[in-house]
Parts: sequence; structure tokens; C-alpha cells
Amino acid sequence: MRQLRIDMAQINTTVGDFAGNTQKIIKAIDEAKSMGVDLLTFPELAVCGYPPEDLLLKPKFIAENIEALGRVREGSAGLAVVVGFVDAAEDIYNAAAVIYDGSLVDVYRKIYLPNYGVFDENRYFRAGSECPVYVINGVRTGVNICEDIWFEAGPATAQAYAGAEVIVNISASPYHSGKGDYRERMLATRAADNVALVVHCNLVGGQDELVFDGNSMALDEQGRLLARGKQFEEDLVVVDLDVEAVLRSRLRDSRLRKEAPLPGSKEWKTTRKEVSQERSAVARPPLRKSRPTKRNGLEEVYNALVLGTHDYIWKNGFDKVVIGLSGGIDSSLVAVIAVDALEPSNVVGVSMPSRYSSAGSTSDAELLAQNIGIRLISIPIETPFQAYLDALAEPFTGTGPNVAEENIQARIRGNLLMALSNKFGWLVLTTGNKSEMATGYATLYGDMAGGFAVIKDVTKTMVYQLARYRNSIAGQDLIPSCVIAKPPSAELRTDQVDTDSLPTYDVLDPVLMAYVEEDKSVEQIVAMGFDEAVVEQVARLVDRSEYKRRQAPPGIKITTKAFGRDRRLPITNRFKGW
Amino acid sequence: MRQLRIDMAQINTTVGDFAGNTQKIIKAIDEAKSMGVDLLTFPELAVCGYPPEDLLLKPKFIAENIEALGRVREGSAGLAVVVGFVDAAEDIYNAAAVIYDGSLVDVYRKIYLPNYGVFDENRYFRAGSECPVYVINGVRTGVNICEDIWFEAGPATAQAYAGAEVIVNISASPYHSGKGDYRERMLATRAADNVALVVHCNLVGGQDELVFDGNSMALDEQGRLLARGKQFEEDLVVVDLDVEAVLRSRLRDSRLRKEAPLPGSKEWKTTRKEVSQERSAVARPPLRKSRPTKRNGLEEVYNALVLGTHDYIWKNGFDKVVIGLSGGIDSSLVAVIAVDALEPSNVVGVSMPSRYSSAGSTSDAELLAQNIGIRLISIPIETPFQAYLDALAEPFTGTGPNVAEENIQARIRGNLLMALSNKFGWLVLTTGNKSEMATGYATLYGDMAGGFAVIKDVTKTMVYQLARYRNSIAGQDLIPSCVIAKPPSAELRTDQVDTDSLPTYDVLDPVLMAYVEEDKSVEQIVAMGFDEAVVEQVARLVDRSEYKRRQAPPGIKITTKAFGRDRRLPITNRFKGW
Repeated sequence: MRQLRIDMAQINTTVGDFAGNTQKIIKAIDEAKSMGVDLLTFPELAVCGYPPEDLLLKPKFIAENIEALGRVREGSAGLAVVVGFVDAAEDIYNAAAVIYDGSLVDVYRKIYLPNYGVFDENRYFRAGSECPVYVINGVRTGVNICEDIWFEAGPATAQAYAGAEVIVNISASPYHSGKGDYRERMLATRAADNVALVVHCNLVGGQDELVFDGNSMALDEQGRLLARGKQFEEDLVVVDLDVEAVLRSRLRDSRLRKEAPLPGSKEWKTTRKEVSQERSAVARPPLRKSRPTKRNGLEEVYNALVLGTHDYIWKNGFDKVVIGLSGGIDSSLVAVIAVDALEPSNVVGVSMPSRYSSAGSTSDAELLAQNIGIRLISIPIETPFQAYLDALAEPFTGTGPNVAEENIQARIRGNLLMALSNKFGWLVLTTGNKSEMATGYATLYGDMAGGFAVIKDVTKTMVYQLARYRNSIAGQDLIPSCVIAKPPSAELRTDQVDTDSLPTYDVLDPVLMAYVEEDKSVEQIVAMGFDEAVVEQVARLVDRSEYKRRQAPPGIKITTKAFGRDRRLPITNRFKGW
Repeated sequence: MRQLRIDMAQINTTVGDFAGNTQKIIKAIDEAKSMGVDLLTFPELAVCGYPPEDLLLKPKFIAENIEALGRVREGSAGLAVVVGFVDAAEDIYNAAAVIYDGSLVDVYRKIYLPNYGVFDENRYFRAGSECPVYVINGVRTGVNICEDIWFEAGPATAQAYAGAEVIVNISASPYHSGKGDYRERMLATRAADNVALVVHCNLVGGQDELVFDGNSMALDEQGRLLARGKQFEEDLVVVDLDVEAVLRSRLRDSRLRKEAPLPGSKEWKTTRKEVSQERSAVARPPLRKSRPTKRNGLEEVYNALVLGTHDYIWKNGFDKVVIGLSGGIDSSLVAVIAVDALEPSNVVGVSMPSRYSSAGSTSDAELLAQNIGIRLISIPIETPFQAYLDALAEPFTGTGPNVAEENIQARIRGNLLMALSNKFGWLVLTTGNKSEMATGYATLYGDMAGGFAVIKDVTKTMVYQLARYRNSIAGQDLIPSCVIAKPPSAELRTDQVDTDSLPTYDVLDPVLMAYVEEDKSVEQIVAMGFDEAVVEQVARLVDRSEYKRRQAPPGIKITTKAFGRDRRLPITNRFKGW
């Protein structure tokens, strides 16, 4: 029986860490050898990390990437390897090196360069134009990169038409909620349409605003899942591909045998290249049956937040974080995520009550800190607050209290957290959610001050859901039930609650999703059944808060459109979305 | 004599301001009619403003742009108009409407979409593929857009080969120091190479980080400048083009008559379209001789900063600004720019001395405020500073003073300025220069707190030059000579000076230019003659400060590579440029 033993090395690379990435790759190569693997695959740009952004404009970065590829090549005796790197010729290419037994056999260059959402690949790369098919141990194999397989009449199809029985797609496909299912359906369709085995090796790990979820997959020629990598963890997934089944299916299925023209207008050059001879049957270690499981819904989002937080912290060289704990649900959730990402001993909470803080502000923060086992520092802000009011008494003469006095308090807290950060080297995690980021219901340099905004892309509605989810898997109220129950408040003036300034979150959040993520107009959102005045208010708040978001720390993308690189609006803008 | 009276309407548009932009366009149309203009040109995307960024993803934005174009068309009876707008068909295009006498005759679609530096046009637009030649009053005219004319074998050349005597290029070409000369040389070369008159109508005005410098040009078929629009100001430039001279030159010059193949591999479809009949000689008002003048060097940069500051302020609906005045040269220069952009009565200075401030800190700020006629508020920060030290005494137990105590002071100042902003609606201008932004020699949420960073792209070396330049044109020391003379200091601890932490600026600034703007490696910079330890220190500081820059306010680009949209580096990055 013709088989190909394939290994998807779903590793967590770091941008620019040539030594570290190379070490991981070579370690996976050694493990693959012991497993008798024929073809070992790594994610897109595994050598240099993804996305390298403007580091790609530095010739030294490109050169070090080529050197690192050389070390990978030298370490790959005895098997075929497909690994992502930056190819440099008359221009640079997002490429896959096809290596066999220590030799670079060929380089595939990515054809479809994504340049939307968080992607800027046209900024850097020239597109490839060739779709070779490699013969690896007698199996015809097409290699392509990420976006290439998302087009129905793309390189994968061209390779299948040219005879490829296996399609290897190496990816760095960023996570958002629901993307795993979407990606799986697409890959299954591609496999079935092309009557080919599909091997999708995806990156795992956090990089600034992005989390890559791993979740690598191998699918058979009918689109059935054969194996799956872990989600949000490194994994080496070895699977035996039954290549004979492809031929049997193709004999039954006339589509590919008829040499129909490739759909769509593009025709790429397809060539065939021998990579390695078919080897005689060797004894190989048996494989444990892979157990495809996939996290769902809230569990998936929660794990994305934990991994994104963990990786931002440790890839940037921190080991401790500090979080302002208000006794509210946002900071409570962030603290729990931080504890899950690190250890309780590496998370410090700071309670900073003011004259407007409720009793619960302090006691709820204390209860949370106790529940999750973290140190809690208490710094009341009354004295600095009064010092500001005194200092500003003269210039403020004749004015009534407004948002100025409110923001002073938030900025005192920001200053205190940053002082702790500067003194002890702790990273400040901010606690603002997406509903606040969208409407500007946050104080710039106040509660927005910090290095990483863990739940920046999580709506308030989902903050509650995640809190309840986390409590449910703990089997106890890690986040105290009183925190979940009380009405949200910034506590910056007497008896303030969020609904003084905002619609209730059950209205706000769906309006925000329509306006921000789906770019719907006010008219369209009103037609969905929302009150016109409310929708206009929300749209106005979103539009006017662009300057705040521009100065916000990065946070983890978990939706189809996050604030940050994903959504690029001008600050100077007289267009009225409302 | 065959002539074409052409008008370059170099207007200052605002992104998303369809009503305002349309009004300006129609006003220019009316003026052009009174001048007997044949062909009136407007900048790239004049209808919607440039660059609209992700507003282009909103269908309502596209629809309003089409409606606005309709109003322009209706107002254009009696003359030919070329105006930039977003064309929408199966996709969207960066386009030029060719209108005659109230009818839309044709739409040209930009072929070369820039996607580097500050540009992201591939993110939005599909590229055009046709290079029509329009016959306007008997004159064969090629129309193209901005980047299209920057390629020697591009659309302009294709149009000239297809017979165009006049090449109209509508642009939104952002300013950087020296770009005017570069652009003029390119346009002159394009005119001479193609033996064609070149009309380049460029946008003027500020938009977030960008300043468009106007400086529109008409050049004859030998590349000689015929007329030039003002730099950094709106202008309507009317010029009579001597089309017969083109024919005479072409008869002498065999290049275009020989129907040589278009250089380069691209061939676009060229068509010819009658726009308007050649009209019999009409009496037209005589033109004043245009006097091509161009600002140079420091004057040009200074004016870019004034326009960029003015436009950010008023396009965002502010009328007053507030600036922290330390008595140092950076804040002094920013205050003078602000006064030039607004009126002295709209600029407020705030002196915030601390226990570490020199006597000059207060007296120099007072002298400056007096010289430029602005109000100065004084708020000593000792009391809030002591309140912070007291509040932090317990968590700081056993630690020595470090950057934490220094930054607290800068953040108190940021908090005070923001309190004034929140109380009175004043925009905070920050005063950090490029040398500080590059090395991270600035306090996040402290002196970096504010809405607009006027001199963010100006090196410290150039800050001094601009201060001296501004004093020289004032004929007096607006910026006190003692401010220029004293050694730079952050005054956050006793006897602190910048050179405690940084190389001297005459070394730092050229190293930064090589490392940041030219992406040179440490090795290459050392080979330029700089000390290796110094270059490594600088590169390390630049690399480690990315997180600060990500949260910095926008500021005006005046160099080939500014921090902001122009330079996109990951924060999480283990690549060592040093």
C-alpha cells in the first residue's frame, strides 16, 4: 500500500529569533527521524517568525534568515522537509524551502499575498507564479502557502490538476472566534473538490495582537479529518496518508481525469520535480491513533487570551505582571487570565480606592486576590487626588466639575501602576474591554495605560460569559459572584454607573458589532431593529474615539475585526457614519 | 496658435468632508469659468480626501463620494474638469473623473497603486488597465494619477506614445524634506522624455501624519517649468499651454514618431476619446505671469510643520492648544510653531516646575511666553509629587531611586495638561523630537501624553536649526538665546543632562538616520566611521522602544521615514539590529 508518513510540526516561533526558531525546527527534525517520517512540515515563515513586518526591509534580517535556513538544511539528513522562510532573489518572496537529505531541492513562492485585515504582504513580497509538483517517495505532492489554498481556483487546484495526490499547505493563519470551523470546512472542500489529501500545518503562538491557534489538520481525499494538532499548544502530529485511496477515488471520479481547464482565468506554470526516490518498505514505529478534538466557543476564546497573554509577556522578556484591581469584572477576568498564563506568584494586583469607590471595590478585589492566590497591594489615591485638585484650583476657578476631575483619578492610577512597573520591571496589563475601546469609555493614560490590553477585543457581554465559563471549569466562584452581579461602574464620581453614558450592553454590543466589525451604516443598523437615537449615539462615540485607540496598547485579536492593525481609520475624519 | 488654458486647482481637502470638498471644487469651477479655462484639474481623491484609509471599506462612504461627484458634474457646465474620486464597479478604483459640460465623459483608473511607506492602496483598490487619450478642445491629453507618472515606462509614456501632447497627473504626494526637488526633476524628465507638456496638480494640506505640500507644476515639452503653485497653501494656477510647440519639437525629435515599442513589459490598452470640440478663439482674460518660487531647506520644513499643526487642530474641531513649557528648546519651538499655526491667544503655555527644575526652567518659559504673546499658567508639581512618593513608600520599601521616581514627575505633568484639556477643550501638543522618539528618551503617558506630536519627526539637531531659522526671520530672539545655549536636560533628577543617557546629538542623529531611515546594520554604520559601542547602544535603544512609539500620538512626517504608519515594526521582536 502506498503510504506517506507525514509530520506537521506545529511550533511556536518568535519573530526575529533565528537561533530559537532554528533550534525548535532541528529538534522536530530529530524527532521526526525517530518516527520514520517521510515528509516533515513547518509553518509559514517558521525560520524568521510571522509576521516580521518592516523587519523585512532590513537586509541583515533577510541574510540571517537565509543563514538559519542553511542550518536547517544541514540538519535534515534522511527526510524531506518543507519549511517557511524568506527567499531573496531580485526581490523577496514568502517562500517554502523543499529540502531532502540535506539539499535544497526547490523553493516554492507564495502566489496569493494577503493584503487586507491584519495582512500587509504586498508591502514586502513579490508574488510567485509557479506551481510545481514534487515527487516525494513516489508520491506527487503540491506545496503551497496559507492564502494560496483559500482560493478555489488557486495553486492547490492547479497542483491537483497537474497530478498532485497530496497538497501540503503551510500556514500562519491568525485566530479569531469561529475561524477554526471556517478553515476546516474550506480545507475539507478543497480536499474533496480536488480528490487529494490535504495537509495543513499551522503556526501556534502569540505575536503582538495576533494569536495563531495551531489546529493543524490532515484530511483525506473525501474531506474527512484524519488528524488534528492541538489548539493553542505546540504539537507534532504524525499521520500516515493512504495515497492509494486517492487513486481509487480519482478512478471513480471523472473530474480530474478529464483534464478540464483550470477554473478561473489564471494559469500558473506547473512543473514536476523528483525530490526523493520511493523507498522500499521499512519498519516504522506504529502511530498512536490521533484523536481529533477541538475546543469550542468560550473555551476556545479563553485559551486564545491565555496564550496571547503568555506569549506577549515572555517573548518580550517579562516574568511578572501588575494589574489594577477595581473589584469590577474586567480587571477580575484579566487577573484570572494572567494567573492562567503565568503563575499566581507572578501576578500582582493593586487596589487603588478613591473617595468615590464603593466598599465592594476594595473587598471584592481582596476576595478575588485571595481566590486566585495573588499578592494585593493597596494604595489609596485620595492624597494625590487632593494634591491635583489643589494644584488646579486656580486655573479651574469658576468651572464646575466635569470629566476632567474624573480622569485625574484614572490617571493617578495609571501613574501608580507605571511607577510599580518602572521600579520592579513588571508589565502592566490593562483591563479595558472592546465595548469601552469602541466607545471611548476609558481614560487615555489612565486605565488605558499599560503594555498589553488582554481583553481589548472582548465585548463586555463576552467578558461576563468568559467569567462564568472560567468559574464553571474551576468548579467555584474564582471571580466572586458579587463581582458578576453588580452593575458596571467606573466609580469616578458619586453613584456613577456605565449606563449614565452608554446604552445597556445587551444593546450596545450588537450595535457595535454591526458598526465596527461589519461596517454597516446607521440606517442599516436601525433597520435591524435598534433605536435610531441609540445607534447614532454609538456611531458618534466610535467615530470620535479614534484618537484614543491610536494610543492604546496592543491586545489580542479574537474577532473578525479588532482595533489595531486590523482596522485603520484616520483620526482626522469628517465622514459621519451616523 | 493652438493653446490650452489649464487650471491647477490645488485645494486643501478634508477626508470624509464631502460637503466641504464639493463646495471648494465648485468654487474653483466658477473661478475657472471666469478665467476662460479649458481644462480644470483637481488633486487625487479630491472628492473624498486623501488618504481615506478604512473608510473605503464602508459602502456608505463610497456612495456619498459618488453623490458628491454628481454635484461636481452638475456644476461644471462649459468646461472640462478632471477630478479625483473613488470609482465603484465590480470593485473600487482610485479614479479620475473626466467631465465636460456637465457630463461624465470617462473615468480613468489608477494603474500603479503604491503599497509601501505610508501607502496601503493595494488594501483597497483594484488597479486600472487602460490609458485613454482624451481630445480636449482639439488637444490630445492623457490623464493619470500620482504614482502612475513615477514610472518611466508607465501610463504617461503609453499616453505620449499614443499621441498625447499634454499629460495631466493628479496627485496626493505627501511631503518630506527634499521631495519637492526630487518630484520636479522627475516631472521634468517625464516631460522631456515624452516631448509632452506635463501638468501636475497636487493636494495641499495636513491629514494626520501627512502634509501635502501643493507645489503643483506645469512643465513644457523640454521639461522647463512654466508655472508653479504655492507650497503649503491653497492656490489656483492658470497657465496657457503652447501645444504647437509640442508638435514642433516632435518633428525635430524622432523618438516618438518612430512608433518604437513602449519600454518595459507592460502594454496597456490605449483608446482615444473626444471630450470637447476645439473652440474658436475666444477673448479670455490675460494671465498674470506666474512666478515660480520654491521654499528651500529649513523654511520648507518649518512651513510643513506649521501647516500640519494647523490642519490637525482645525480639521479635528479644536481652536486652542496647550503646551507644557519646560524652558527647553523642544517645547519652545513647538510653542512658536503653534503661534504661527493659530493666534497667540489660542495657545496656552503651562510651566510645571519640580524640585529638580533649574531656575531657568521657569524664567526661560516666561520669557518665551512673553516674546510670543501667549498666556502662561504655572503649576508647581511638588505637592502631587510628594503625595505619590508617600503613597508608594510602602511598596517601594528597600529600593533605591531609579527611573520610576523620574517618570512619576513627567506623568504628573501629563496628567495636569490632560486635566486642562478635559476641562477647557484644549488640544495638548506634545514636544518630543525624533531623536527622543527613536531612543525612547521620553516618558510614556508623561511628556508623550497629548493629541499631536508636532516635532516627532524632527531630529534634535534640526530642532536647533529650526529655532535659529525662526529667530532669524523674526529678526529677534523669539526663542531666547539662553534656551538655545543651555545643555539639553529632562530635569527629572539632580543635575541630569541628556548626555548622561545618550551620545551627543551630533553623533546620535546621523546614527539614527542610518539605522532608522536607511535600515543600515550596525556593521555598516560603524563602517561609516562611528564608534561600535555607541552604534550598538543606539540600535538597542531604538529596538527596545517600539512599545513606546506604538502608543505615541501622531505627528508630522518630514523625513523619508517617520515613526507611525511609515514604519511598522513588531513590538515582540528578538531580531538584534546591533
